[in-house]
Amino acid sequence: MATLVNDSILKNDADGPIPVSGGLGTDSYYNHSFFQKIAANVAKDMIEEAITKKLDVKFLLSSSNTIRIADLGCAVGPNTFDAMQSIVDVIKLKYQTQLPASPMPEFQVFFNDQPANDFNTLFKSMPPKREYFAAGVPGSFYGRLFPDSSLHVVYSSYALHWLSKVPEDLEDKNSPAWNRGKIHHASATEEVLRAYAGQWADDLSGFLNARAREIVPGGIVVIVTHSIPDGMEYSELANGMMYSCMASILLDIAKRGLITEEQVDAFNLPTYAASPGEFVSVVENNEYLNIVTMGESNPSPWLTDDVHVDMNEFVSHIRAAMEGMFSKHFSREIVNEMFEQLEARLSEISVEMESAYKDKIQAFYVLQRNDSG
Amino acid sequence: MATLVNDSILKNDADGPIPVSGGLGTDSYYNHSFFQKIAANVAKDMIEEAITKKLDVKFLLSSSNTIRIADLGCAVGPNTFDAMQSIVDVIKLKYQTQLPASPMPEFQVFFNDQPANDFNTLFKSMPPKREYFAAGVPGSFYGRLFPDSSLHVVYSSYALHWLSKVPEDLEDKNSPAWNRGKIHHASATEEVLRAYAGQWADDLSGFLNARAREIVPGGIVVIVTHSIPDGMEYSELANGMMYSCMASILLDIAKRGLITEEQVDAFNLPTYAASPGEFVSVVENNEYLNIVTMGESNPSPWLTDDVHVDMNEFVSHIRAAMEGMFSKHFSREIVNEMFEQLEARLSEISVEMESAYKDKIQAFYVLQRNDSG
Repeated sequence: MATLVNDSILKNDADGPIPVSGGLGTDSYYNHSFFQKIAANVAKDMIEEAITKKLDVKFLLSSSNTIRIADLGCAVGPNTFDAMQSIVDVIKLKYQTQLPASPMPEFQVFFNDQPANDFNTLFKSMPPKREYFAAGVPGSFYGRLFPDSSLHVVYSSYALHWLSKVPEDLEDKNSPAWNRGKIHHASATEEVLRAYAGQWADDLSGFLNARAREIVPGGIVVIVTHSIPDGMEYSELANGMMYSCMASILLDIAKRGLITEEQVDAFNLPTYAASPGEFVSVVENNEYLNIVTMGESNPSPWLTDDVHVDMNEFVSHIRAAMEGMFSKHFSREIVNEMFEQLEARLSEISVEMESAYKDKIQAFYVLQRNDSG
Repeated sequence: MATLVNDSILKNDADGPIPVSGGLGTDSYYNHSFFQKIAANVAKDMIEEAITKKLDVKFLLSSSNTIRIADLGCAVGPNTFDAMQSIVDVIKLKYQTQLPASPMPEFQVFFNDQPANDFNTLFKSMPPKREYFAAGVPGSFYGRLFPDSSLHVVYSSYALHWLSKVPEDLEDKNSPAWNRGKIHHASATEEVLRAYAGQWADDLSGFLNARAREIVPGGIVVIVTHSIPDGMEYSELANGMMYSCMASILLDIAKRGLITEEQVDAFNLPTYAASPGEFVSVVENNEYLNIVTMGESNPSPWLTDDVHVDMNEFVSHIRAAMEGMFSKHFSREIVNEMFEQLEARLSEISVEMESAYKDKIQAFYVLQRNDSG
């Protein structure tokens, strides 16, 4: 089970339809995002290297003495504060190296998430001695959020696997993509997979079009995201197994007559992990953004085979991230039972999940706006 | 009572220690800010005229194609949305006149208030079809909030009469400014008045120093604020009478032994209405900002002497704005009783209050950064 905890399901901090649990309480995302921090740290070196190599601060600052950074899908913290401070630190170092005689620029950081995100908690928990001016930006990152050419570095971590919506075909009972007995494309029909993949590609395309306008020439976009190796099926991944588990629990509840099977068929998780091949092909359709570096990783070098996750704690994390989605479709009692049963079911298949989880399920991309002249 | 409702006590949307009541419920500021809207509308013509006359959009846009506007002390809406849209409209009109052949600039609006403000409500109630990119900025406007030279128009309405804190001398029982039997400087000693005036001048000075850095050369700062005619005493104003009423109710409660007199002495409302003379003298100490236009008004031409305010409704408004301050110092029961008695007490002195309220208790200032070359 070692590697499972870094998976994308732990972080619902993006622009999907339901935000993570707000506030600072026991069940809140704020108190259950330690594992996301680990995942972010794994990518940190790559981010630092990309910024150091690719960001020409002299050129960027020719038009302004402020460096503007955005975290798209920031959730409520605290990981976003660490990530933003890391980026500020790297740019400062780069600046000292490239322009040792000049005064340090000022930094402005924009924290974005959907309007339903708990910005009150985010704002109250900001580091008091931060080295940047802070602003919150409510809205979907699949559309425009900022003025033309106003950002220098865009960062988005574990957010782009959240679709802007459940693919429409999945909500039509007469469509071949009606997802009978499933809550995700894992182990589902080809039509269901195609509907998910199409929605994801449309969403990423919208994201890239917006960013291409918003970043300055020479500016970069750093994306850390849940991924799947090219050629693999989602049902082979631990997450896929877990989604199938959830569907199976819900179907059992339906058999007892507490919900209908149609309710299960109609419920689908709006999340899609694309392969690097799919990602590259969407970026190639954008004429302003180029991939300057990319990579896949297994985000769990910090856990060895001897270290196992407490399944009770693990399900608490899953629940903090995903409960809101289930609660929109099922009653409180059903959701409670689903998560209670989940712990037992996952324990039964922990060996298979752990063995399925040796693959590279995190990807990292740095894009740069190419009209830097 | 007609004019009373426009007074500053109705709007606690600034950077004082306690924010207005959040959310969208019955007692919320959102649902009790109609009168502030009227006050803002009175100033609207003056704001439009100042922007039209003073803002050189061609010059401003020479360095950027984005116009950045900030509302400092925006509270939770909805008035801030109307105010920001009005400013965008005026600048657009000015732009069409001054540069008819150029494409329209983009607009970015920053909504600022203290971190404890209910930004979640603000963000969820934003106009969906707004003509600007929106961001929220948590923090005290008495300090820096934005990068150097990054704003074109700063707006602040009924916010600058809220002090950053209760003057320290008022919290020391051995100070000559210990405010025995009062909760405000109205009808208080000379030392108390001096402590309030000094804190206000320090705060405004901090506000101006920060804005002088943040606005671009040629940028303007529009301030609408509670005011007092030069030479008048605050006890002559309706608000002063109301604060004395509140103190008197609290002292009566103290006589019944439910609170101590010392608790009343130690509680002071952090609000100060400066005269135009005081305001000008603080601005004159700032080397970058000049007053380009200013005026006093009575913000209630919309109500004639025949129109009277429902006192129950009026006290609801006062309560939405001020309850938080009282609740920090007194128990829920005491605060309830104070506001319940207030309605009866104000009804008793409504004739005096109305007659006291014929004065110009709203001031309007437009400042411009003078190093526009």
